[in-house]
Amino acid sequence: MRHGSMEALLITHLPDVRWLCGFTGSNAALAVTAGKAVLFTDGRYTTQAKEETRGARVTIAPKSALKEACGWLAAQAARAWFDPEHTSVAALDLMRSALPAHQRRGFFAPLQNPLLSELRMVKDTEELRQMAEAAALGCSLFEAMLPRIEAGVSEIAVAAELEFLARGLGAEGMSFETIVASGARSALPHGRATQARLPRKGFVTLDFGVILNGYCSDMTRTVHVGRASDEARSAYDAVLDAQEAAVAAVRPGATCGAVDEAARSVLRKAGLAKYFTHSTGHGVGLEIHEQPRIAAGQEMQLKPGMVITIEPGVYLAGKFGIRIEDMVAVTDSGNRVLTPVTKGWIEL
Amino acid sequence: MRHGSMEALLITHLPDVRWLCGFTGSNAALAVTAGKAVLFTDGRYTTQAKEETRGARVTIAPKSALKEACGWLAAQAARAWFDPEHTSVAALDLMRSALPAHQRRGFFAPLQNPLLSELRMVKDTEELRQMAEAAALGCSLFEAMLPRIEAGVSEIAVAAELEFLARGLGAEGMSFETIVASGARSALPHGRATQARLPRKGFVTLDFGVILNGYCSDMTRTVHVGRASDEARSAYDAVLDAQEAAVAAVRPGATCGAVDEAARSVLRKAGLAKYFTHSTGHGVGLEIHEQPRIAAGQEMQLKPGMVITIEPGVYLAGKFGIRIEDMVAVTDSGNRVLTPVTKGWIEL
Repeated sequence: MRHGSMEALLITHLPDVRWLCGFTGSNAALAVTAGKAVLFTDGRYTTQAKEETRGARVTIAPKSALKEACGWLAAQAARAWFDPEHTSVAALDLMRSALPAHQRRGFFAPLQNPLLSELRMVKDTEELRQMAEAAALGCSLFEAMLPRIEAGVSEIAVAAELEFLARGLGAEGMSFETIVASGARSALPHGRATQARLPRKGFVTLDFGVILNGYCSDMTRTVHVGRASDEARSAYDAVLDAQEAAVAAVRPGATCGAVDEAARSVLRKAGLAKYFTHSTGHGVGLEIHEQPRIAAGQEMQLKPGMVITIEPGVYLAGKFGIRIEDMVAVTDSGNRVLTPVTKGWIEL
Repeated sequence: MRHGSMEALLITHLPDVRWLCGFTGSNAALAVTAGKAVLFTDGRYTTQAKEETRGARVTIAPKSALKEACGWLAAQAARAWFDPEHTSVAALDLMRSALPAHQRRGFFAPLQNPLLSELRMVKDTEELRQMAEAAALGCSLFEAMLPRIEAGVSEIAVAAELEFLARGLGAEGMSFETIVASGARSALPHGRATQARLPRKGFVTLDFGVILNGYCSDMTRTVHVGRASDEARSAYDAVLDAQEAAVAAVRPGATCGAVDEAARSVLRKAGLAKYFTHSTGHGVGLEIHEQPRIAAGQEMQLKPGMVITIEPGVYLAGKFGIRIEDMVAVTDSGNRVLTPVTKGWIEL
C-alpha cells in the first residue's frame, strides 16, 4: 500500500481475504488502512473468525459485512481502493450507498493493477511446500487409479473412486469437477464424467485436482485402453513432445507467450496446431485458475515462486482427444515439475 | 424483454446461460435481441456447445467471447441491458472497450430488477421434478449414512463416504463442500469436515447437497452420538419446533420475512433466539443459493413453484450446535417438503 501510496484498501474476494488474514468463511470484507486492518463477517462465523484470523481485528456485522466495512473505511480515510475484477457493478453501488453522502463522489477508486493477484502469483516457501504436497497427493491418486481403468467401467465410477481415495488421503475436496472423458468424449476438453462406459479401445483423459490446506492441485493424464491406432499413438507422442518443450521453456524471465509458443510450435510441425484449441496453462494456488495466463502473446515474464500448469492438448471431434498436464514451479534457475508421475505412453 | 421494452440483453452469468439455452460450459456470453439469440464461447467448447445449445446460434470466438458478443450487440441495437449483480466493474470496462467509439456512451444499461434470478425463482414442472429427484437422492444418502455415524470415525471419513455414495447414485457432484461438524465443532454453522473424530457424546451435524442434472439439493440433519444432556435435548426440540413452524408458514402469498419470523419466534420463546445467528433459508435451483432470501424483514411474497430451504439452527460456542434443514417447494395450496426423511430426535 505504501508503494502505491494508497490510503485504504477494501478486499472482498475470498481467496484474497484468506491469503491476507487466514479467514476461510464465505462472507468477508477486509478493510485495511496504513495502520489498521479489520475483518468484517457475519454471525455464522463468530467463533471461526476468531480462531482463524491473523493480523486483523474481527467485527461481526449484524447486517451487511460489506456495508459496515465501507462505513468504517469512510471514517478512516478520504479514499479507498477496490478490486474491479472481483467487485460487481451492483456491489459497487451498495458500497457507495454505505458512505456518508458527502463522501460518495470519488471515494472508491478501482485498483489500476491486479495488486492481490500479482502478489499471490509468487508463492513463498511455505506455500510452495503446501502446493508440492497437494500435487504429490494428485500423483498418488493417478497411480492408484491406473489398475481401475478398464473397458466397461463408467466414467462416473472412475471419478467417484478417485475422489473417495482423495478424501481418504486427506484432501479437503476437489479443486474442480473431476474430468473423466473416454473414447470420442476425450475430444471434449472439459468433458465431465458421465455414465458412459470406458470403451474397449480408446483414450481416457483424467483431469483432476485436490484441495489440501486450501491449495489446489491440477494435473491431467491421458491413457489408452486397448490397442491404439498409429494415428492415436503419433498424436500422443506429439502432445507429449509439445508438453515437454513447454516445460523446458519455463524459467525466470521467459515470457508466458514464449512458453505457450514452445508447445504450439511442436504441434504446428506435427500438423496438429489447429486441434490445440486452448491456451497452454495458467497459474494455480488458493484458486484453481490464477495469474499468470500461459497463452499466445502474453508478455508477462515468469518469476521464481510462480506455480503454473503446462497442459497442451489436441481434440479431433468425433475421434479422440489427448491432454497432458503438469504443475510446474518456477525456480531461481529453471523449474521444478510438482507432478512428476509418468506421462509416457500407457496402453492398458 | 418485450415486457421491459428492452432492445437487447447480454447474459454472462453461467447458470443463467444454462437456464436460457442449455449450454453448460465455463465460458459463455449469450447475446439476445428481440429476434435473435447468439451464444459466444471458445474453442474448447466447439463440440459441446453444438450438442447442448437450444434456441441460440453458436459462435466460437477466436479471442474473447465476451468482447465478440458486445461487438455483435452493437451492430444489432442502440442499447443493451446487462446484469449488474454478475458483471464485475472490470468486465463492464472490457464490454465497453469492445464497442465502436461512438456507441460507448450509454450503450450498456444495468438491469434495474434482477430479471433472470426472478425468472429462475419459479421452477416449472420439469424443474420441480428434477429438484425432487435431487432432494430424494439427498434423503437416501442420509439414511445410508446413519449406521456409519459412530464415535471415533473422522468427520472427513463420513464426508468421503457420503460423497462416494452420492456418486454411486448418479450425482454429478456435491452442490457445496460437505459439512460434517461434530461435538463442540457443531457450533460452527459452516464447519467443514476435518480430521476430528466423532465424540463419544455429542451432536453431529450433516449439511450436504448433491447436483443431479444440474440442479442442487440441500439438507441438514443433526443427530446425537451417546446419551444427550437435558440441555442438548431441549435445544434440539426447540430447533425442530422452529423448523416445523417455518415450514408450516410456507404458502403462496406469505412474505419471506413472515416465514423467517415463524422460526425465530419459536426460538425466542425458548430463550434461544440469540443463538440463531443466520437467516432461515434461501432459494435453491441450478445454484445452491438463489432468490428469494428467507430472512427478517424480507417483503417478497412466496409464489407457487419456488423452492426454498428452511434451516433454523442454534449455536452455543464451545458447547454444541443444532441445525435442521429441509428443501420445501411452494405449491398452489401450501407447500411440499422435498426432503421428507426423519428429522425427529436420533440418539445413536
